[in-house]
Amino acid sequence: MTELYDVAAIGNAIVDVIAPAEDAFIAANGLDKGAMMLIDEARGVELYEKMAPGIEASGGSAGNTIAGIASFGGRAAFLGKVAEDQLGDVFTHDMRAIGAHFDTPRLVGGPATARSLINVTPDGQRTMCTYLGASTEFVADDIDPAVIEAAQIVYLEGYLFDAEPARRAFAKAAGLARGVGRKIAITLSDSFVVERHRDALLGFLETQVDLVFANESEVTALFETDDFDAAVAALRERVKICAVTRSAKGSVVATQGETHAVEAFPVEKVVDTTGAGDQYAAGFMFGLARGRPLDVCGRLGSLAAAEVISHYGPRPLASLKDLAASKGL
Amino acid sequence: MTELYDVAAIGNAIVDVIAPAEDAFIAANGLDKGAMMLIDEARGVELYEKMAPGIEASGGSAGNTIAGIASFGGRAAFLGKVAEDQLGDVFTHDMRAIGAHFDTPRLVGGPATARSLINVTPDGQRTMCTYLGASTEFVADDIDPAVIEAAQIVYLEGYLFDAEPARRAFAKAAGLARGVGRKIAITLSDSFVVERHRDALLGFLETQVDLVFANESEVTALFETDDFDAAVAALRERVKICAVTRSAKGSVVATQGETHAVEAFPVEKVVDTTGAGDQYAAGFMFGLARGRPLDVCGRLGSLAAAEVISHYGPRPLASLKDLAASKGL
Repeated sequence: MTELYDVAAIGNAIVDVIAPAEDAFIAANGLDKGAMMLIDEARGVELYEKMAPGIEASGGSAGNTIAGIASFGGRAAFLGKVAEDQLGDVFTHDMRAIGAHFDTPRLVGGPATARSLINVTPDGQRTMCTYLGASTEFVADDIDPAVIEAAQIVYLEGYLFDAEPARRAFAKAAGLARGVGRKIAITLSDSFVVERHRDALLGFLETQVDLVFANESEVTALFETDDFDAAVAALRERVKICAVTRSAKGSVVATQGETHAVEAFPVEKVVDTTGAGDQYAAGFMFGLARGRPLDVCGRLGSLAAAEVISHYGPRPLASLKDLAASKGL
Repeated sequence: MTELYDVAAIGNAIVDVIAPAEDAFIAANGLDKGAMMLIDEARGVELYEKMAPGIEASGGSAGNTIAGIASFGGRAAFLGKVAEDQLGDVFTHDMRAIGAHFDTPRLVGGPATARSLINVTPDGQRTMCTYLGASTEFVADDIDPAVIEAAQIVYLEGYLFDAEPARRAFAKAAGLARGVGRKIAITLSDSFVVERHRDALLGFLETQVDLVFANESEVTALFETDDFDAAVAALRERVKICAVTRSAKGSVVATQGETHAVEAFPVEKVVDTTGAGDQYAAGFMFGLARGRPLDVCGRLGSLAAAEVISHYGPRPLASLKDLAASKGL
């Protein structure tokens, strides 16, 4: 089968509502700074009323990653569920406008398109409250075999472990990908996701996954330890490649045979960390799909992350292809 | 009657869809660079499909001005029509979140909330295609006398001259304001608006208006001349105060007795000119409502315009109050 795509990703299709907030606002509203919290529609309405004026932008972790792949000049596909509403129009437009394949049937007559209320504090940290709405209605039937089988890497968003039907969709996608010898990648997404689904995630990693993305808090949560090195050592035993990000400290890329410490790219001012991990994954997988060595994959990830945290919004504004060329990558 | 508001504004309630574009895109789609063009829904869908990925942000000329007044620490009210839909929710939230009074009943069962497709070229110029949708359903009954009579300045958006019912709403608001001795201000909005409604606008200016905002192309279009000074001279004969902006060349503030040339504030890089005129009007009217001399009003306008053109989006991101204080204004 021809490889039409560098990466095909499955994730929650979400529109972000991004607004500035003070630390006191995060505390007063009982939010967990830097984390992602699931909320229902009523809580969403209540929180939105208290937030500052914002902007809306297409988001969703895997959706952001696909936007990054496209910005590097890669070929990408996205699978996820939006509703037949205005925010669904926005998400669909933004995905297709970057040249990504996006063809999941829209949800009719159910909940609205998912949105994430993102409060960005003066230190650039983002705190997310997500109403999943239509995105949880993504089911195994939405997996298009032609897309999955035509992708070099199939990328799965750990957030989807929260919905049982989506987990079945994962299994189907993984099976299809495995059947034609594709690579399977996953991001652990969030330490609370890891806490909620530790056993299921570990089982999935050991049996299905080639490449795993995690940050420091996710990998230590997975192995219930405070020892970062021990957690990475445990992870590399279970998958072919792990790429663990550590914010300003860069990332560690490890296989059973190699370890690379990758530096973060310097950023003049961290404006909004939304999408940093997503863009790291984009750079890394673009490099991997194009046959680059693992340390270069890590540097491409760092470069993309640095671009996205230097401005408001979860997706690259500059061409990552041009940026990579300017840095000799 | 107590003055509850510095400014109450009537305008089209619009959500902006802002995306980067090359000059070739503007030409290929038959758009008039730098202008505002009215489009119907079908043309909106067609154009949106061709546009780059974007962000959504509450906009509308007078709505942006109200956001600016609030950012200066002023008390503001907005009157305009959105639909009962997601973009209507966004517009309403953003207006109330800045502390502005906004209570116009939403449109049920009619067209969707207005949106403006804004293509921003690398030189920072914005070219707008606006689908007016629900905003044209603003009628005289939507004028709340309690709000109009409680505002020092009633500000009207010239764009509303395109809809006959809105023009009747204007007349009602002007009459109410006049009845309690309030100031009436208007912006000419766009040179094509001026071409379409020259006689009606001139009549309105001469009989109802104290303060008029215009840019170079609007004021010269109004008097069908290429001579800027002649146009300003003709305008100052007809209204108490005119404030005419000239992009990087600053602005001219003129009454029958005084003329002030006001310099533009320097900007490191012009990113997106959307909202420049709207913010100029915000700064000027905030100053006027607070009893500042006319040249200071002009400088406050220039300051607010400089803030908004230095970033993407039509409304201030920084506190204009703090910015003005830092410049000794």
